[in-house]
Amino acid sequence: MEAAVHEYVAAFEAGSAERVAALYAADATVEDPVGAPKYVGREAIQAFYSQSMATGAKLKLLGPIRVVADYAVFPFSVNLHWEGGDRRIDVIDTFRFNDANEIIEMRAFWGPTNMHGF
Amino acid sequence: MEAAVHEYVAAFEAGSAERVAALYAADATVEDPVGAPKYVGREAIQAFYSQSMATGAKLKLLGPIRVVADYAVFPFSVNLHWEGGDRRIDVIDTFRFNDANEIIEMRAFWGPTNMHGF
Repeated sequence: MEAAVHEYVAAFEAGSAERVAALYAADATVEDPVGAPKYVGREAIQAFYSQSMATGAKLKLLGPIRVVADYAVFPFSVNLHWEGGDRRIDVIDTFRFNDANEIIEMRAFWGPTNMHGF
Repeated sequence: MEAAVHEYVAAFEAGSAERVAALYAADATVEDPVGAPKYVGREAIQAFYSQSMATGAKLKLLGPIRVVADYAVFPFSVNLHWEGGDRRIDVIDTFRFNDANEIIEMRAFWGPTNMHGF
């Protein structure tokens, strides 16, 4: 599960939505941010990441990955350059895994108070 | 919700399980760590915190509190001195709140890889 998180960050860095989507189960859900409508299924998830990456956003881990039961949970920031300024969003993701070690549920916790420079 | 997290840390620092329990709804659940049996109800929750505090453990926030929808989520460490050594556990808690701004569900994400000095 820890390796999956590192591959997630590396795949994002490489701009490969396909590599990110490959970490997910075929019937996975992504809720980003929590409370928003969920993306359901690997195809919808890949499209979502393609769009995210188009902003030039980069992820930076901000602490150890917490691993327990079927979860990996980690703090990070999303950093992007937009309209001449540096912007940052502080996020915590929860990844829940299935028995095949695929992410079956992703939830991203961030809100207005976590957005900086916007 | 952010104020509740700060009061949580302060109440823990003050060694007051009663103040911590007062942040919870009467029918709240605490799952610490995730996957363990849940403590249900304010009385059981207060007993759990009394026991935790008896170890002399202190909490230290390790980054911004993520606030979204009915959740506050935050990275922190539990620090304790035990059998002559300093021990640390890296944790991420998710607090879910009800309409009365009471914590209705707490989940603590930490596992063996997050325990240091034990």
